[in-house]
Amino acid sequence: MKVLWIFAHPEQRSLNASLMREGLRELTGEGHAAVVSDLYAMGWKAALDADDVRTDSGAAPGAAHAARPARDPRLRIGAEQELAYAEGRLSDDVREEQRKIEWADTLVFHFPMWWFGPPAILKGWFDRVLTQGFAFGLHGADGRVLRYGEGGLAGKRALVVTSVGARESGFGPRGIHGHVDDVLWPMLHGTFWYTGMTPYEPFVVYGADRLTGPSGDRYAQALRERLRTLPDAEPLTYRSEHGGDYEGDLTLRAGIEPSATGLAVHRVRRRGASSETCAEGAARTARMR
Amino acid sequence: MKVLWIFAHPEQRSLNASLMREGLRELTGEGHAAVVSDLYAMGWKAALDADDVRTDSGAAPGAAHAARPARDPRLRIGAEQELAYAEGRLSDDVREEQRKIEWADTLVFHFPMWWFGPPAILKGWFDRVLTQGFAFGLHGADGRVLRYGEGGLAGKRALVVTSVGARESGFGPRGIHGHVDDVLWPMLHGTFWYTGMTPYEPFVVYGADRLTGPSGDRYAQALRERLRTLPDAEPLTYRSEHGGDYEGDLTLRAGIEPSATGLAVHRVRRRGASSETCAEGAARTARMR
Repeated sequence: MKVLWIFAHPEQRSLNASLMREGLRELTGEGHAAVVSDLYAMGWKAALDADDVRTDSGAAPGAAHAARPARDPRLRIGAEQELAYAEGRLSDDVREEQRKIEWADTLVFHFPMWWFGPPAILKGWFDRVLTQGFAFGLHGADGRVLRYGEGGLAGKRALVVTSVGARESGFGPRGIHGHVDDVLWPMLHGTFWYTGMTPYEPFVVYGADRLTGPSGDRYAQALRERLRTLPDAEPLTYRSEHGGDYEGDLTLRAGIEPSATGLAVHRVRRRGASSETCAEGAARTARMR
Repeated sequence: MKVLWIFAHPEQRSLNASLMREGLRELTGEGHAAVVSDLYAMGWKAALDADDVRTDSGAAPGAAHAARPARDPRLRIGAEQELAYAEGRLSDDVREEQRKIEWADTLVFHFPMWWFGPPAILKGWFDRVLTQGFAFGLHGADGRVLRYGEGGLAGKRALVVTSVGARESGFGPRGIHGHVDDVLWPMLHGTFWYTGMTPYEPFVVYGADRLTGPSGDRYAQALRERLRTLPDAEPLTYRSEHGGDYEGDLTLRAGIEPSATGLAVHRVRRRGASSETCAEGAARTARMR
């Protein structure tokens, strides 16, 4: 594998930093190549703003401004990101990350979960690096939008490695925090799968605030095992946008899991029966997770 | 109402900025007070780091470092935020936001949805401002942790105003993007409800990239209506942690919606029947939403 390890923790002596070192040791020991983007160490700029797209680097002076229609001076950030990408005018730090992604076949996103999501510095990596034209907004030969299973990052593996203070039960299928796969839905499905990447079951360190040495060692061992088996692991089986499961208005076809709602309906069933009872469906969902 | 309007859009001439102005006009016209935190205009620092907690402002020189145990030089960011809050050492920008929150009884979070979540600059507002000791980690008289329905921000209203490029159907109960309430779960339940705030149904502008003048006007009108009726609106009915619905391990009691999983199980039912059929449950969920 060619692994890009994106790390978003402010302390180099943290449990997470130690886990990353273990992970990298495992990868290189197995003959894989690894590159690290340590966002705090890099001083990564978190907020996407006009400076991302209105630089003149790599283009003739004034080109950035000329690209915008004169009658609309407003910053349309998504459209301008796409244009700046196409014209090679994205800021240097963003282009560098895009080059790393192009090189890699596997992306590891490693962060402590804050407010049930990534730290702002990592959210800003998504906002700034995964520009339209690069990661999404591409079209197939038949004109269809490449999205959810297809896209600019198609075929790359994506693995979350994260830590939470809470116990595992609270992040289970009926846990108060929400099932961890549902909590991470914006990333697993809305970002990885949306851009065509193949998402895997997240690797979660529970009770991170209270971990003692032996528990930390067990997590290190478990992480090495996850990385060792990743090439052959079964991914999360989300439905493809163009696989026949969705209507033109992007809702799940009526015949698939009729009347069911919730994020789990967007996972492909392991078994075909559409006539399963509610309890069977719940049990299946629990097994799938 | 005393409204703190947190705005996270990089362009002052955007549809969202125009909607905010309409909203503020409505609020002040109705006799409410409003304060704005325009994060991009303020140059808000997004990334939580050591500078948040290791300043000397408001304390004797060296106090910040003395507060850490000498044998552990590691940055334990959550614990240090709590200590810095208690000792008045949080950075000035963070303390200013906390003062605004203390003043307000209603918080509006207004942002374009990027990668199915808030822009990094807003995520960083949560990471940096909602510190332990201020927003969560408080204890009741009986020693229980105040969380999910109780907490440092108890009783304050919280409303999301957001815009998405996609059509509404894709964010519906069976839409490919996930139901918008589930997509926003980390904020609605994991942040608002977690800190004791009362969350409301998000106000979502769909198809934001293609909105023409009249459609924009309709959204402005709808937003004014939402704000006018907010004091009497019915909130999202999440279950309280200590309301009797959860076991000690923070899983939903077995007798409540038996076998059901998914984020919707954490919403209180409108009707009592636990023997409803799967189809009835789905229909109820659809109605609740």
